[in-house]
Amino acid sequence: MEAKEFKEFAKAMADYVAEYLENIRDRQVVPSVKPGYLRPLIPEQAPVKPEPWTAVMDDIERVIMSGVTHWHSPRFFAYFPTANSYPSIVADMLSGAIACIGFSWIASPACTELEVVMMDWLGQMIGLPDEFLARSGGEAGGVIQGTASEATLVALLGAKSRTMHRVKEEHPEWTEYQILSKLVGYCNSQAHSSVERAGLLGGVQLRTLKPDDKRRLRGETLQEAIDEDIRKGLIPFYVVATLGTTSSCAFDALDEIGDVCNSNNVWLHIDAAYAGSAFICPEYRYLMKGVEKADSFNFNPHKWMLVNFDCSAMWLKQPRWIVDAFNVDPLYLKHDQQGSAPDYRHWQIPLGRRFRSLKLWFVMRLYGVENLQKFIRKHIALAHYFEKLCLGDERFELFEEVTMGLVCFRLKGSNENNEALLRRINGRGKIHLVPSKVDDVYFLRLAICSRFTEESDIDIAWKEVKASADEVLAEN
Amino acid sequence: MEAKEFKEFAKAMADYVAEYLENIRDRQVVPSVKPGYLRPLIPEQAPVKPEPWTAVMDDIERVIMSGVTHWHSPRFFAYFPTANSYPSIVADMLSGAIACIGFSWIASPACTELEVVMMDWLGQMIGLPDEFLARSGGEAGGVIQGTASEATLVALLGAKSRTMHRVKEEHPEWTEYQILSKLVGYCNSQAHSSVERAGLLGGVQLRTLKPDDKRRLRGETLQEAIDEDIRKGLIPFYVVATLGTTSSCAFDALDEIGDVCNSNNVWLHIDAAYAGSAFICPEYRYLMKGVEKADSFNFNPHKWMLVNFDCSAMWLKQPRWIVDAFNVDPLYLKHDQQGSAPDYRHWQIPLGRRFRSLKLWFVMRLYGVENLQKFIRKHIALAHYFEKLCLGDERFELFEEVTMGLVCFRLKGSNENNEALLRRINGRGKIHLVPSKVDDVYFLRLAICSRFTEESDIDIAWKEVKASADEVLAEN
Repeated sequence: MEAKEFKEFAKAMADYVAEYLENIRDRQVVPSVKPGYLRPLIPEQAPVKPEPWTAVMDDIERVIMSGVTHWHSPRFFAYFPTANSYPSIVADMLSGAIACIGFSWIASPACTELEVVMMDWLGQMIGLPDEFLARSGGEAGGVIQGTASEATLVALLGAKSRTMHRVKEEHPEWTEYQILSKLVGYCNSQAHSSVERAGLLGGVQLRTLKPDDKRRLRGETLQEAIDEDIRKGLIPFYVVATLGTTSSCAFDALDEIGDVCNSNNVWLHIDAAYAGSAFICPEYRYLMKGVEKADSFNFNPHKWMLVNFDCSAMWLKQPRWIVDAFNVDPLYLKHDQQGSAPDYRHWQIPLGRRFRSLKLWFVMRLYGVENLQKFIRKHIALAHYFEKLCLGDERFELFEEVTMGLVCFRLKGSNENNEALLRRINGRGKIHLVPSKVDDVYFLRLAICSRFTEESDIDIAWKEVKASADEVLAEN
Repeated sequence: MEAKEFKEFAKAMADYVAEYLENIRDRQVVPSVKPGYLRPLIPEQAPVKPEPWTAVMDDIERVIMSGVTHWHSPRFFAYFPTANSYPSIVADMLSGAIACIGFSWIASPACTELEVVMMDWLGQMIGLPDEFLARSGGEAGGVIQGTASEATLVALLGAKSRTMHRVKEEHPEWTEYQILSKLVGYCNSQAHSSVERAGLLGGVQLRTLKPDDKRRLRGETLQEAIDEDIRKGLIPFYVVATLGTTSSCAFDALDEIGDVCNSNNVWLHIDAAYAGSAFICPEYRYLMKGVEKADSFNFNPHKWMLVNFDCSAMWLKQPRWIVDAFNVDPLYLKHDQQGSAPDYRHWQIPLGRRFRSLKLWFVMRLYGVENLQKFIRKHIALAHYFEKLCLGDERFELFEEVTMGLVCFRLKGSNENNEALLRRINGRGKIHLVPSKVDDVYFLRLAICSRFTEESDIDIAWKEVKASADEVLAEN
């Protein structure tokens, strides 16, 4: 493909993308295809001769869009949001053109340095203490990971490395596997499934602890678990505090947990994957009280801050423990400036990495802090609007207090009724929700996801919920 | 940012990108900035008010390009290539607009299904046996990972899970940690550093074995190591065979290694990260003889097949062992069609994933197999052209036979002279190389990287090498 054709193709795609997003409200949010729908629509093998770009363009609706779940439809309320914005899409074009692999400083200084500074911008925006930021002049700083799962795993490896180091000094007679078998980490039983996976991956035990009646992990619960494990001869080394659980957006009691971690020499990682974006609004920072007691902090601008996937922001006070865990440094990756700027390959699991900070730069500049705050506040207001509609119908109850853009609600009464309600709502095909279950209580989750969602969409959502409830209850 | 502005911005960016790439030859390949260059060029904090897109556009040259290492310059010969093509950049625009997170089939059927079929197209293109492909009708199939490092780790977890399962049945009295401490994996000491990292991550021993005089791991060496470890009471469980080592592009004796793995019930993973793309040309498939004996196979279209990072292609005969290793299945991720299509979140480390198969689809269709083959053959021919120039100067010798697009060369004589040679070459700033060292022999690596590289660029590279050698030898 020549430059001339590329320009035509890219411009046609820009028009298509704008048309797609501006009219996304008109599309059916979840497609009605069955598994295996796509294979018969295209050839069995790659073509030998090149095709014109217009042929590819012509296939997008027929092959792709017919099977897409439209995450950016204002009627999509499932999971948590994933970000999508025009500035971010354009930034990715530039990233794709430069296409450097920023594993070390010299491999592309701009790639590393913009990331360092953008993570400082972002850290300041959400009110992180200076001791997490590169501008403080120490070793601390931020790094862009692919996902919160990776951040959880990277923090676990740092924690493991720091504790192994300490225990080896205290007990030189123990083998690596003996120590490993004693390590134990903790999280809320409501923490994201990736925390459990990080434990499986890292080969260490992770205990899930029972939260209080508001789904918050409390300091006292953690202290008891730690005491119990120490009595058994185990070595507590890692805690993940969740700010905004996936099921119901509950917030762990960070301030209490932080004290317990600090007094027990345990690495505290904060997973604020979804809710972290809200901290750009000062009125929500009370939820991260105690953040200064943590060793690492993570949230996903690719969820709720208009930066396209993947962009998971992580800050570390002592990245040296991660570097130590990955201490592999072949000659072909060495360079003269080592030590004077971070070599981010030591801060992450893969070696390769794209120029992702461009997305952050474009989004922060083209929206401005003010509009990013507006965006968050609007989503939270829409959630409260749905909450109000729900509470106005006495057949419904909330499962959890609404703090962010998520409403957890249910029909009063049996789980079966609520399962039927969900099936009915999704079956009608106008909106899309997913359920969750906590302590055997099944409930529905309505998450404000799209940047196109307006009050009128919430009205439609409520109409769908209400009509479905009418049907379900009429059948009882 | 409104749709109208987006279209203007995206189109201006398309023009900029085309201009950048078409004239990349004129840019200095490695920038002359020092660590810390970028911070003073931009404000200390994100702007409160939005800026116009033209302001961002104006900053690209000043802030970013002044510090970019131009990986797509035809004078960039460092590391291995990373891919970049116009069809791939346009595909990413569409992926960014759809911005679905394809962790399960229902989360976006098109995202999962195009990936399944594209991995079949790609597998056929490189001549993989049907038993790796989804179209064979069994559980086998392909998946796009972020990087080869992740593929190596995922395969290790599958191997660990399969072996743990077997050993637990044979020795129900052993604890998980007892088994873990006995597991041992193997690779060539020339294998990529990510293999060692996978071992560190997974908490298992990985032995690096000495290759033969052509840097190939041989079956006999592996068998001896396995025998020795079994005598010690260890449990061999995993082997990584490298097709195209990073240092010198050597190829392990796959056919021999495959036999040893199969007769010892050991998982064989093939890491063909760079060289795998060459298998689209039938004349290079002799290098993957024995591939049918492997359990998993991986190569990076994002390296040498014109698909932008990240797109690491992995095939598994028995994905069930990976699924087993990650067996975490919360309600909010369940759906009605589970089991009838792959839920790729079980095949990878992160939960989230972009719509990456679009890039493969666009590139395969807009180039056609024919032009992708031409691209590979041209790169290999350029490497042989440089090889010829080298061998025509009796002061030089090759460190390794040239098979792919990499030439490993050195001045006859001391390592010090070659270190001085590299410093001189890179210091002159016209071309960029990195060195390597194997068995204490230091050599220079010239990898054909850019799709813009022509014979005239190789002539310039050779002129630079020769002139630098003249200077170095004159000083002796």
